[in-house]
Amino acid sequence: MKDNRITENLILQLQEVVGSDYVITGKERTEAYLYDEVEKTYRPEAATDCVVVKPASTEEVSGILKAADQAAAPVVVRGGATGLAGGCTPVVDSIIISTERLNHIVEIDQENMVAVLEAGVTLMDLLEELEKYEGLSFPVHPGDEGAQMGGMAVTNAGGARAVRHGVMRKHILGLTAVLPNGEILELGGKLIKNNAGYNLTQLLLGSEGTLAVVTRVILKIFPKEKASATIVAPFEKIEDACHAVTDILRSGYTPLAVEYMDKRLFVDTAKMLGLKWQAEQGNADLLIILSERTEQQLYDAVRAINEICEKNGAYPCLYAGKQKEEEELLLVRSQHYELIKDEICDSFDMAVPVSYVSQFILGLKELVAEYGTGTNIIAHIADGNVHNDILFLPDGTIPPYADELKHKMYDLCYSFDGTVTGEHGIGKIRVEELAQQKDPAELALMKGIKDVFDPKGIMNPGALFDL
Amino acid sequence: MKDNRITENLILQLQEVVGSDYVITGKERTEAYLYDEVEKTYRPEAATDCVVVKPASTEEVSGILKAADQAAAPVVVRGGATGLAGGCTPVVDSIIISTERLNHIVEIDQENMVAVLEAGVTLMDLLEELEKYEGLSFPVHPGDEGAQMGGMAVTNAGGARAVRHGVMRKHILGLTAVLPNGEILELGGKLIKNNAGYNLTQLLLGSEGTLAVVTRVILKIFPKEKASATIVAPFEKIEDACHAVTDILRSGYTPLAVEYMDKRLFVDTAKMLGLKWQAEQGNADLLIILSERTEQQLYDAVRAINEICEKNGAYPCLYAGKQKEEEELLLVRSQHYELIKDEICDSFDMAVPVSYVSQFILGLKELVAEYGTGTNIIAHIADGNVHNDILFLPDGTIPPYADELKHKMYDLCYSFDGTVTGEHGIGKIRVEELAQQKDPAELALMKGIKDVFDPKGIMNPGALFDL
Repeated sequence: MKDNRITENLILQLQEVVGSDYVITGKERTEAYLYDEVEKTYRPEAATDCVVVKPASTEEVSGILKAADQAAAPVVVRGGATGLAGGCTPVVDSIIISTERLNHIVEIDQENMVAVLEAGVTLMDLLEELEKYEGLSFPVHPGDEGAQMGGMAVTNAGGARAVRHGVMRKHILGLTAVLPNGEILELGGKLIKNNAGYNLTQLLLGSEGTLAVVTRVILKIFPKEKASATIVAPFEKIEDACHAVTDILRSGYTPLAVEYMDKRLFVDTAKMLGLKWQAEQGNADLLIILSERTEQQLYDAVRAINEICEKNGAYPCLYAGKQKEEEELLLVRSQHYELIKDEICDSFDMAVPVSYVSQFILGLKELVAEYGTGTNIIAHIADGNVHNDILFLPDGTIPPYADELKHKMYDLCYSFDGTVTGEHGIGKIRVEELAQQKDPAELALMKGIKDVFDPKGIMNPGALFDL
Repeated sequence: MKDNRITENLILQLQEVVGSDYVITGKERTEAYLYDEVEKTYRPEAATDCVVVKPASTEEVSGILKAADQAAAPVVVRGGATGLAGGCTPVVDSIIISTERLNHIVEIDQENMVAVLEAGVTLMDLLEELEKYEGLSFPVHPGDEGAQMGGMAVTNAGGARAVRHGVMRKHILGLTAVLPNGEILELGGKLIKNNAGYNLTQLLLGSEGTLAVVTRVILKIFPKEKASATIVAPFEKIEDACHAVTDILRSGYTPLAVEYMDKRLFVDTAKMLGLKWQAEQGNADLLIILSERTEQQLYDAVRAINEICEKNGAYPCLYAGKQKEEEELLLVRSQHYELIKDEICDSFDMAVPVSYVSQFILGLKELVAEYGTGTNIIAHIADGNVHNDILFLPDGTIPPYADELKHKMYDLCYSFDGTVTGEHGIGKIRVEELAQQKDPAELALMKGIKDVFDPKGIMNPGALFDL
């Protein structure tokens, strides 16, 4: 697909669909729509002869896709662009559908406990809206509240709070989606149980814009839990911390989140923020976030988890029950990136079974030591989801061993029955790894499904599959 | 596919794969392998020139499918045969793969809280095995513990306990599946988060044997909750009972199950069992099953739910906290079928959004009254999943209006944004309804996916799609 299919004629058609105010052309005006948040070193290079369109309805999206289909022009959807896999970066000249105007909260349905949301509604919009209702919430939180519902759906977003509540896939009951040929699908509904045929909703979740454009989601919402607290459990050894994690999961006192970072990240991030990391002992701290219906239940959970940590050799746990204390801890957890961002050359999103996570982390540390370098570990540890990185050389250049080291990290991950991506997705930066991880038979099925939905191959070219 | 492809040569090949002891031929010996539990009146008629094979491993299933593929011979998988949609009934002469020898509990992994199970492990086998470990359980319960894991997976089984825990789809992390050409797929794993490519596990869940043969499942297991109780909440009007249900769901005190039956079914089933239904007042009783970690939490939940029921006009609720009392209540709930089975001509599995469920039930009652007949209502009411029926005429014959009434029931269901099947599936008895319920575009995608997995159309012919 080397010739540019974004012709003058196509642009005119797009203007007819959405109005000329909402069609943006010209490299200077479209360049703000090309990248997401992948590290610059390894992000895919964007094609720059693109046109940005901003539809305001499912019908307009359908009109855009009909025009694209006729011209066999590539289509990339851009939501909040908070992704970390280059998913919304056009690698061939494309129509970029920006969902910012699909931003209506259609309905908060308290009887069915669902929210009906257009794809461009951000997580922040949703959480603010739910604040207006007494005690409603939505648990999945990928970290950046600028993430949009459509993007969170098609990437099956995860985040820290998946320990209790799981990822997006568990909470989406239905979708409105537009096929590459412009046909509109209404999938699922406000139904808790629905076994009529293949579940195409589930297939679209995690399909990363390669099959259809999602314009609306039907999302399960939840009663807000009223009591929360955060525990810091410091351990001498990560093995003990991880044993405590599996014991906690076994106990049934399931936390909202269990986060792990290298001790120095907790300590130095706190310092950077003008705070002090209170856990002075130990080398492996767990940040355990609890959320329960009542204070009594919270107390029970704190006591049970404290006991489990002690039994696994923890130093005395720190308990933050006041809002300010909790906020400080979570701030340290969320701001570590500011501390290390300049040293990160490449970053990862592997996941392994929880039982292997300490061996995996220790293995990663050993591996980088062989190259005389380090790696920062930040893990959603109770999900087995480990973020780590390859560092620049001290002079800020890409190390010559970067590629080799990456492959050794992935081999280590596979040796623990892991996956190259727990939550960020394949996008355009892990296409080769997907092909390594999967059997040819599974890849062939995926490609077959892709062809069923998108016979002309116009949807997000370069994502999941090679161009 | 009118010629019988189950040739002597094929049978010889199957004997080579599994050994001649495990290949069963002859109408008399195979007739026990043809039907599931659909009412006889409307069950699909089985083809009778079938061969039954009993593989003991994934590799043997692969060998069977290679032979089937070569001969383009239809394949139907038979698990526990507890289905209610004719899914495992061969409607053309077929190879019937009976999974009874794939009955190994491969692993109970307490660190990762997963069970690895062969497809033929029954729910009873699993529950008994989990009893051996302190405090482990698996929540999904479709009613019949003879159901097998493979069948529960490919039908995405539900049941009463979906209110708190959801259906099978939420609990399966991975599958081993054999494609129609014999290729073996290992999908997913012991991973809580895994975003590498299209989620084919989720696609196979609910695919009813039309895409591949599942031979092994990786299932999430859970810590057992120690405190349980059952409440009977009697209301005068079903509208009030349903309001109480949505208020309970909104409160966060989520029960394990909320069951509804016509009052006469509670009263008369109890009588049939030599018991007395204690709730004398009211016409609309909810059976609310609670399960919590501690007695204190159970107490909190009971109190909260009691208050909600009272606020919605309930008569005083009855509380069963002792095991014997609880067992009696659940016995009445589970044995109603014995009371009414002889009067059922056809039965249904529709589901609507929870907010519409009282209107839907009242609408069904009005509809049957127009025909001078009745209908029994048994509902997983907090899931919006309503089982009802069309009754035989008093002389035991099929009423002349049966088909018309059925279509009116489905139209009523659609008018409430419902689905023809909440949990039982399409199988071979709702193929026409599936085509009515779905847009042609969605059906075409389903058919496209079917062709990708099963280009020769040998997998469970007549299920989901017309022959």
